[in-house]
Amino acid sequence: MKEVKGGITTAKGFKAASTAAGIKYKNRTDMAMIYSEVPCNVAGTFTKNIVKAAPVKWDQHVVYDSKQAQAVVINAGIANACTGEEGMEYCRKTAEKIEAQLQIPMDQVLVASTGVIGKQLPIDCICAGIETMVPKLSGGYESGHAAACAIMTTDTHEKELAVEVEIGGKTVTIGGMSKGSGMIHPNMCTMLSFLTTDAAISQPLLLKALQADVEDTYNMISVDGDTSTNDTCVILANGLAGNPEITEENEDYKAFCQALHYVNETLAKQMAGDGEGATALFEVKVIGAETKEQAKILSKSVITSSLTKAAIYGHDANWGRILCAMGYSGAQFDPEKVDLFFESAAGKMQIIKDSVALDYSEEEATKILSEPAVTVIADVKMGDATATAWGCDLTYDYVKINADYRS
Amino acid sequence: MKEVKGGITTAKGFKAASTAAGIKYKNRTDMAMIYSEVPCNVAGTFTKNIVKAAPVKWDQHVVYDSKQAQAVVINAGIANACTGEEGMEYCRKTAEKIEAQLQIPMDQVLVASTGVIGKQLPIDCICAGIETMVPKLSGGYESGHAAACAIMTTDTHEKELAVEVEIGGKTVTIGGMSKGSGMIHPNMCTMLSFLTTDAAISQPLLLKALQADVEDTYNMISVDGDTSTNDTCVILANGLAGNPEITEENEDYKAFCQALHYVNETLAKQMAGDGEGATALFEVKVIGAETKEQAKILSKSVITSSLTKAAIYGHDANWGRILCAMGYSGAQFDPEKVDLFFESAAGKMQIIKDSVALDYSEEEATKILSEPAVTVIADVKMGDATATAWGCDLTYDYVKINADYRS
Repeated sequence: MKEVKGGITTAKGFKAASTAAGIKYKNRTDMAMIYSEVPCNVAGTFTKNIVKAAPVKWDQHVVYDSKQAQAVVINAGIANACTGEEGMEYCRKTAEKIEAQLQIPMDQVLVASTGVIGKQLPIDCICAGIETMVPKLSGGYESGHAAACAIMTTDTHEKELAVEVEIGGKTVTIGGMSKGSGMIHPNMCTMLSFLTTDAAISQPLLLKALQADVEDTYNMISVDGDTSTNDTCVILANGLAGNPEITEENEDYKAFCQALHYVNETLAKQMAGDGEGATALFEVKVIGAETKEQAKILSKSVITSSLTKAAIYGHDANWGRILCAMGYSGAQFDPEKVDLFFESAAGKMQIIKDSVALDYSEEEATKILSEPAVTVIADVKMGDATATAWGCDLTYDYVKINADYRS
Repeated sequence: MKEVKGGITTAKGFKAASTAAGIKYKNRTDMAMIYSEVPCNVAGTFTKNIVKAAPVKWDQHVVYDSKQAQAVVINAGIANACTGEEGMEYCRKTAEKIEAQLQIPMDQVLVASTGVIGKQLPIDCICAGIETMVPKLSGGYESGHAAACAIMTTDTHEKELAVEVEIGGKTVTIGGMSKGSGMIHPNMCTMLSFLTTDAAISQPLLLKALQADVEDTYNMISVDGDTSTNDTCVILANGLAGNPEITEENEDYKAFCQALHYVNETLAKQMAGDGEGATALFEVKVIGAETKEQAKILSKSVITSSLTKAAIYGHDANWGRILCAMGYSGAQFDPEKVDLFFESAAGKMQIIKDSVALDYSEEEATKILSEPAVTVIADVKMGDATATAWGCDLTYDYVKINADYRS
């Protein structure tokens, strides 16, 4: 497997387009489309928030009932959440517009929205945007990259990548783009993430691979503990790589899952590191756990602790807050037996042994914590299970961004 | 029942003292004592964090085994948490010092600490502080007030009150003081809260009354979602009011519980409103719930949402974040049927009906949200149960305080 420059248009047969549809922002693109030359098997995972945005409900129907899709329409600026019947109607109108323009059955059109909750979409702008984008659909790096830029809200940079992997004697490509910066605490899936692949893989296995992988990737990141109403991750597989279709959990499936995991983990980490106002990616590895579930609960509790996140911003080796967050996580461990380490590009050092501070250098610890990516390793010495979670620091800018997000 | 000017020294037979023991802070008091002329029945509730500070473990022994106490020693600046055997030894030395000075059995001495985690207490300063305080112990408002000031950390003001209630033909007083501003997300009890009463009440009923009441008061506040290692709430009842001892759940017990609730709720709200960096007390009432448990989960989810808290700081009627936080709370409700209202000293207005925005005035909403105490009322229209939770807004100063708390 190797990473290649690319995104959602790197796999064979996928095209993209974007436009400034005037949905909310001025002077920037805010709408994007993904299109496959042939119908795709589709899989998706969605927010577990019981307040689900209209496009989430629409896409669940496509993924669970149609199981096939050929186009995705995405807008930034307005989330189409808490919009009642009118919001659902706008999803239908968007899909109808694609059906009319591209002769794709409307129940094979995915829609996704991100932005402010509670406002209705300007549906005329959406439909006009589609008319503008359809003739512009194209393959190649540029159109995919432009789409990744168009779906951003408070993100400071686009998030995309592609990998190539050899499956059944053919080169298979998986590409993806995602967005997400605030209201990031995915439960089942992240804010918005779109994956395309030319792999030939049956729909049930595609769904199985995606559902398993989001548990270890998107579901292990958090920016602010707020699980969005719009979390959506979908993957379209059009089979154009020409590999023998993956229909059982064989070596080909494993190779596909490994590549998928790399794409998902990379996008998830990019999202966590670009959390609203963040100055650092904050990684927490729990090792020596009895079960993976225990390690996950402990690591997620630390990356969501406001006090710990503020300490990371201050480059302060305030390890007591880390132990405190592990303690209230709900997972059991021996609070007298924890070893903690800080690690970054600047080095690695042990801070506590058996839950009591070592005679470490605060200066050295601060140096390690001043890097743009910081890792905490917590060894609970109970077994062999591990888990990693990703978050970011809590900064003035997080407050600033969210105190006047709507205005 | 009526509120009177006072605190922990208002109930008959209680004295207090405080001193600048030099534990961490310069030029301020940082140690306090409470003392009763006669032994008291004692009840307490403590953090559910499995990382428990040494004084929590010590006090649990006093409350559950001795069931009697006559003195409390409190320090601010260092939490004596994650301090291993040495930390437990310092609790014992503190109690021994009181035993030597005041002839109170050491297992009837409560200790409490608050401050930075992971540092050892300067035990010589603690012992010297006790020697200084013992001769200064006195009743009257001033000594109690000074104690309430001495136990603060990042608090911006002291928290205390007292009430009088008629029980069994006698005037019974309940007074209290508490501290807490960050790492406030009590589970079983808040950071530190000390209550004194001259009521005559059996120890089992005192414990029952306290345990029941903390569920609706301290356990319903949150500043930052971080459940402390030190959460402690204790009540000492010395019986000097002369009322017939409360030994069953009769009218006298009800009157006592009602007064206790008033004291606890007031202290809890004072803590939430004085959350680190806060500019506003943020109250969330969920009404029309099927069960009280459901209403509690929903209201607590809203007050702990970072995005909602930032919106309150920005005086922004960003109701979508409130509905979103209810949606990921884990409690069930019909997401299409919620009514939301904002209320403060500036007025009350309905924002959404059946989960869709009304044509409300943003200007008017901002006016309501600009008051120092702001209430959200969410009606889920399923039944008659209600619950109220209290938090505060999320501000630049929260980040500032916690990015350099240790330094």
